[in-house]
Amino acid sequence: MNVISDQTIEKMHAYWQAANFLAAGQIYLQDNPLLTSPLKPEHIKPRLLGHWGTSPGLNLIYVHLNRLINETDADILYVCGPGHGAPAIVANTYLEGTYTEVYPAITQDKTGMKQLFRQFSTPGGIPSHVSAHTPGSVHEGGELGYALSHAFGAAFDNSELIVACVIGDGEAETGPLAGSWIGASFLNPMRDGAVLPILHLNGYKISGPTVLARKNDEALTQLFKGQGYEVFFVEGNDPMTVHRQFAEVLDEVYRKIKLIQQNARIRGTFNDIYWPMIILRTPKGWTGPKEWNHVPIEDTFHAHQVPLAGVKEDSGKLKLLEEWMLSYQPEKLFDQDGRLIPEVAAMAPSGNKRMSASAYSNGGLLLKELILPDFKDYALPILAPGKMEAESTRNLGRFIRDVFKLNAERKNFRLFCPDETTSNRLEAVFQVTKRCFMEQIIDKDESLSRDGRVMEVLSEHLCEGWLEGYLLTGRHGVFPCYEAFVTIVDSMFSQYAKWIKTSKELPWRKPVASLNYLLTSHVWRQDNNGYSHQGPGFIDTVANKKNTVIRIYLPPDANTLLSVMDHCFRSKDFVNVIIAGKQPELQWLTIEEAVEHCRAGASEWKWAGNAGKEAPDVILGCAGDVPTLETVAAASLLREHLPELKVRLINVVDLMSLSPVAYHPHGMSEEVFESLFSKTTPVIFAFHGYVRIIHDLVHGRPDPARFHVRGYMEEGTTTTPFDMVVLNQMSRYHLAMEAVKRVPHFHQQADSFIAYCEGKLKEHKNYICTYLDDMPEIKNWKWIDKPIIEK
Amino acid sequence: MNVISDQTIEKMHAYWQAANFLAAGQIYLQDNPLLTSPLKPEHIKPRLLGHWGTSPGLNLIYVHLNRLINETDADILYVCGPGHGAPAIVANTYLEGTYTEVYPAITQDKTGMKQLFRQFSTPGGIPSHVSAHTPGSVHEGGELGYALSHAFGAAFDNSELIVACVIGDGEAETGPLAGSWIGASFLNPMRDGAVLPILHLNGYKISGPTVLARKNDEALTQLFKGQGYEVFFVEGNDPMTVHRQFAEVLDEVYRKIKLIQQNARIRGTFNDIYWPMIILRTPKGWTGPKEWNHVPIEDTFHAHQVPLAGVKEDSGKLKLLEEWMLSYQPEKLFDQDGRLIPEVAAMAPSGNKRMSASAYSNGGLLLKELILPDFKDYALPILAPGKMEAESTRNLGRFIRDVFKLNAERKNFRLFCPDETTSNRLEAVFQVTKRCFMEQIIDKDESLSRDGRVMEVLSEHLCEGWLEGYLLTGRHGVFPCYEAFVTIVDSMFSQYAKWIKTSKELPWRKPVASLNYLLTSHVWRQDNNGYSHQGPGFIDTVANKKNTVIRIYLPPDANTLLSVMDHCFRSKDFVNVIIAGKQPELQWLTIEEAVEHCRAGASEWKWAGNAGKEAPDVILGCAGDVPTLETVAAASLLREHLPELKVRLINVVDLMSLSPVAYHPHGMSEEVFESLFSKTTPVIFAFHGYVRIIHDLVHGRPDPARFHVRGYMEEGTTTTPFDMVVLNQMSRYHLAMEAVKRVPHFHQQADSFIAYCEGKLKEHKNYICTYLDDMPEIKNWKWIDKPIIEK
Repeated sequence: MNVISDQTIEKMHAYWQAANFLAAGQIYLQDNPLLTSPLKPEHIKPRLLGHWGTSPGLNLIYVHLNRLINETDADILYVCGPGHGAPAIVANTYLEGTYTEVYPAITQDKTGMKQLFRQFSTPGGIPSHVSAHTPGSVHEGGELGYALSHAFGAAFDNSELIVACVIGDGEAETGPLAGSWIGASFLNPMRDGAVLPILHLNGYKISGPTVLARKNDEALTQLFKGQGYEVFFVEGNDPMTVHRQFAEVLDEVYRKIKLIQQNARIRGTFNDIYWPMIILRTPKGWTGPKEWNHVPIEDTFHAHQVPLAGVKEDSGKLKLLEEWMLSYQPEKLFDQDGRLIPEVAAMAPSGNKRMSASAYSNGGLLLKELILPDFKDYALPILAPGKMEAESTRNLGRFIRDVFKLNAERKNFRLFCPDETTSNRLEAVFQVTKRCFMEQIIDKDESLSRDGRVMEVLSEHLCEGWLEGYLLTGRHGVFPCYEAFVTIVDSMFSQYAKWIKTSKELPWRKPVASLNYLLTSHVWRQDNNGYSHQGPGFIDTVANKKNTVIRIYLPPDANTLLSVMDHCFRSKDFVNVIIAGKQPELQWLTIEEAVEHCRAGASEWKWAGNAGKEAPDVILGCAGDVPTLETVAAASLLREHLPELKVRLINVVDLMSLSPVAYHPHGMSEEVFESLFSKTTPVIFAFHGYVRIIHDLVHGRPDPARFHVRGYMEEGTTTTPFDMVVLNQMSRYHLAMEAVKRVPHFHQQADSFIAYCEGKLKEHKNYICTYLDDMPEIKNWKWIDKPIIEK
Repeated sequence: MNVISDQTIEKMHAYWQAANFLAAGQIYLQDNPLLTSPLKPEHIKPRLLGHWGTSPGLNLIYVHLNRLINETDADILYVCGPGHGAPAIVANTYLEGTYTEVYPAITQDKTGMKQLFRQFSTPGGIPSHVSAHTPGSVHEGGELGYALSHAFGAAFDNSELIVACVIGDGEAETGPLAGSWIGASFLNPMRDGAVLPILHLNGYKISGPTVLARKNDEALTQLFKGQGYEVFFVEGNDPMTVHRQFAEVLDEVYRKIKLIQQNARIRGTFNDIYWPMIILRTPKGWTGPKEWNHVPIEDTFHAHQVPLAGVKEDSGKLKLLEEWMLSYQPEKLFDQDGRLIPEVAAMAPSGNKRMSASAYSNGGLLLKELILPDFKDYALPILAPGKMEAESTRNLGRFIRDVFKLNAERKNFRLFCPDETTSNRLEAVFQVTKRCFMEQIIDKDESLSRDGRVMEVLSEHLCEGWLEGYLLTGRHGVFPCYEAFVTIVDSMFSQYAKWIKTSKELPWRKPVASLNYLLTSHVWRQDNNGYSHQGPGFIDTVANKKNTVIRIYLPPDANTLLSVMDHCFRSKDFVNVIIAGKQPELQWLTIEEAVEHCRAGASEWKWAGNAGKEAPDVILGCAGDVPTLETVAAASLLREHLPELKVRLINVVDLMSLSPVAYHPHGMSEEVFESLFSKTTPVIFAFHGYVRIIHDLVHGRPDPARFHVRGYMEEGTTTTPFDMVVLNQMSRYHLAMEAVKRVPHFHQQADSFIAYCEGKLKEHKNYICTYLDDMPEIKNWKWIDKPIIEK
């Protein structure tokens, strides 16, 4: 790297001025974009919205990264953590020309600049934070906390990429961000790209000072050194000094990154890796108005949003705004038509080297299909339903193992899991890959290596953030998780679903692989853990999101799970939630039946009922593996005790198939719905989660009041699986009694059957009550009472 | 502090042996608890569940804290972070006698010990992690990440308390925990107690090694020094060496804590505070079996749960278990009856100094009622509905300000907020208190001080965790939050709701103040932020939890908000969710009407409809401030255009009042429900959140299919408030059109009205489409079109 010339510094400064000018313009102006005439109230937007405070810093970083790209031809992705940084990032993408390429109406001239300003944070325009609309971004600047985990996710397996991740000092206070620095312990300089964290300490969040900004350099150095980073400080409020300092630090930092990578790639050395990071201390709202009415603005929280409010109404403020914007000397930066002058424009990289045009930021462009084995090769041989037991996720593990194997060369598939791969019975994957770990590995560790493709860290936030970053840069993955604890990332999921919904509406964003959750260790089987581990609420969070994005599957056995997983791995731009048990459970369908069942979304299991082609007296519906077992068993009880009662059993594997077709693309038509559930027959429905969603899904179907739903009702503790369904009133006996009670003409015959069921439940209750004293053998846990099935 | 005698060390060791013995016993034995006869298969539990790995370390810490208490008379609370530490903590509470006091059936003798063993992780027994059942605990050991934030919450304003917080190295990888260390920047040694973090590095989580355990001492020292802690290391695998080292470190650490507090309290010195913390490195499953079949167990992840499985079936393993348990020499620790021998028992503190019997851990015992001003004194003067505008939360701020004032001496009320107190318009509180901050405060900071009672940190996790810890130790608080971002703590809330549900079932746990969420900056008013800030899903997460715990309020104006807030501040053992807007909005009810309305939960707003005492043709229902405005406006449109149509308007302030009475204690009776909603009249319902929950709540009411619900459907961006309701099809026009369409005999007259509404919507769409070009004044944003109201 050469010494940086004064001329280069000056040109960078000019570029920065241009970006700052455009950032301020977006917040304030609806006309007179170049300030070629004196600023008047009518040039000011009717409502001033936007965040100035973070913008000059973001612009500074952008222009300096541009120089680095120009000099090194590096591939750099810019992850903008600060919440409302759109004025800066949009300004830069506009200066680079990408914005116009993507949105041709926003031309690179005076007219386009005016539109650029007008559309910002305006009805019909764009949001004030970086979003899917912003070219070059894989990170929404809305909810804070995920910038750094997204950055690591993007860097994994992209060995030539540097992800520059700007972290605001506000965001740095969040738990998920504080927990993201640990990413350095999982980033392999041999195969992965680099993450360059740039912690921007501008001192304040919305109203208060930030903790990190008030720490001294020594404390910050310690804090980050302890986590594997070497800190480089850049500090100041004199632009030219900061430019030079930042440019030199950036060169140094780049050299360090290359050195770490060379040591690993050429010499195989992985010792004492300290990834460089930059701490940038510049004033909040730098170069903006210093004060108003003796209240300081620059370098205080008053610069957070609109540093001068009421400009339209106050001529003094208007004057100050004019002075501020003219201080950037737009007349020297843009020609009369509003075009950036060529020598400044030359500071931007070209083509796909522009950070706003990087293919990494539009991962669909880079996406290679996952090579999938034929899932039918992993099918369990089912001779008859309900005869064989198996652990569905363990069987799935063999399939996922071979996905790893087939895509080893493509290096585009990883599994992210909070230390539960084995617990979730997916351990077959360790036959072909290992857990990734960059800290010291010792003899007694198992399945651990630097180049493992299983990312285990005890943080659902990191699993989610890494996977999101990995997917949005064009790769594939799966996130197996304990069902109850996936709600830790409720809000991250929501933001991701919003990102995907938005990006699907943008034709220039290419589809990416779906985000696949595999939820296991679920609510009904917590023999070991109890109440705190029982939480099926993720279904509800997911179901609320846009129907164009979300899919929810409840495969009742191993073969349906295979079929669903294969489908999800092939899909694009969805969030797929798959809920499946890991415990030994009865198996129902042959692989051919499973494929057919999954294709339909919901279908009748004829062998489980006795209605045949007749109209049933009652319909038993179910979704989820445990509800399915109880429902099949309930049907079996009814067949045995009340053979005249005509029962039909419907299993639902694709939850959204229940939805009216207007509300979800998977929703079944009225005809299909009525062919399964009729229009009037009572339905007893056993559901994996909270009953709420079934009540909702059938609302709008004929006579929804006839649906009587059982599900998890926040009862249960450390107990037997059968006791769980009893406590939540979803046991076979509860279902069968409810069924009989809902068929009016059966009331009389039903009395003795109901007495029988109640007797059984009483027996069970006695059994549990005396369990502590008697401690009978495990086989008496009454779980494995198999239903009687005649096919 | 004196030099610790060998005798003391030996006694502590004996106590530790006893605790370890009881921990192992709980995992393995159903009989022969003292191993007075040779161990046989029938003594072994039928199913082995539990977590041994963390137990010896937790026990070690417990016995050492006991000594400190004995010597200093300190009040110490033990927060047990490691996930499944119940074998250890329960063992200690049993040894202290508290367990027997609370659960008299578990006597302190052989019979009781056998029951103690049998009940552990057994159907009908107790869970394998610390829970509300465990005396002395304010922290559930289920979901990981919150130990340290709970510890800080417990320490705030409890100046004489030391909270010893054990953090497992697994938990330390989670985001929320990593983000909790910053608590030191908010803990004031003058008025608050101390938090003593004890990071227990035993090397492994479920299957893999932990990152922190593989860091060297230097890195760890740096990491924590950078965050304001002075690290003391204790490391080893020889018990006596570790005992002495730990005891000495604990004395040193206690001295440091006292010094910091004295410097602050006596000398007023706050400089250079480094709170002491301990890093304890001991083997996972220490003192357990070393290996089996040449596979090492101790000090590996194989010790995580049950270190020897299949003991019942394998005589070799049974023998090893026997050797292991006898290695603690139970015959020297317990007398023949199973009573701990007096000289060992004497190592436990007595009475309420026992950590398991601390009143701090059963906060209801310490709870002082909040002194509340008369909320009616803050009422807005409402002459007629819909005439006056006000910011409801700004008015509420005056009330909360005076809650601070009245309880200043009691020091038992704080407000926790992610840097949004001002943004949420509650800034009146800064007239009487400030933001709390222990880092450097400089001149230009505003409303910032060391003794502020407003806890602002940019972390929803910390706000939630601190508040939970504060409440469970017997104080009061409120958590104002942007609605969309409260879902960041979905899972924390769920765990807390589970804790409260459980503790309500335990008569010895006294009621604590309710956890109050005030959600504002809500989905419908995101003029500045847009899609990423629109998320009303917390309602659904909350509604799924146990009906004995959760309450959801949607006050439509300032006076109802006052009434609801007053009610929530007085309530106990609930989680109250209050959703209210911060933007200027029309006001409806006088304070007397508001009180009456809130008491009813839902009532007819007669002035808004025209049905009078007649049966209405259609009912308009609403819940939430923006839906209420649109619904009142829709009623106004209908009255104006179709005066013959009889309309009734029902506003719902207590969401759960809609529920069938069997499902929620606030649910209204069938009679009341039918008096409001009739049995057959179509209802058009405008809801604040996702429509799902209304569909659910009315399921089970007469003819649920007649409820047609509008709500947020994941549409919207940065746009006008009115455009938001249009995009989500909940505008006055949508509601009015739907109403007319649902009244069959009105179809003919309705055509011209529908054309009118569609015209208005088209006009609006044109307006938004051309907004970018025209940039008209803000007053044309069409938000403030007031409905016409005749009272």
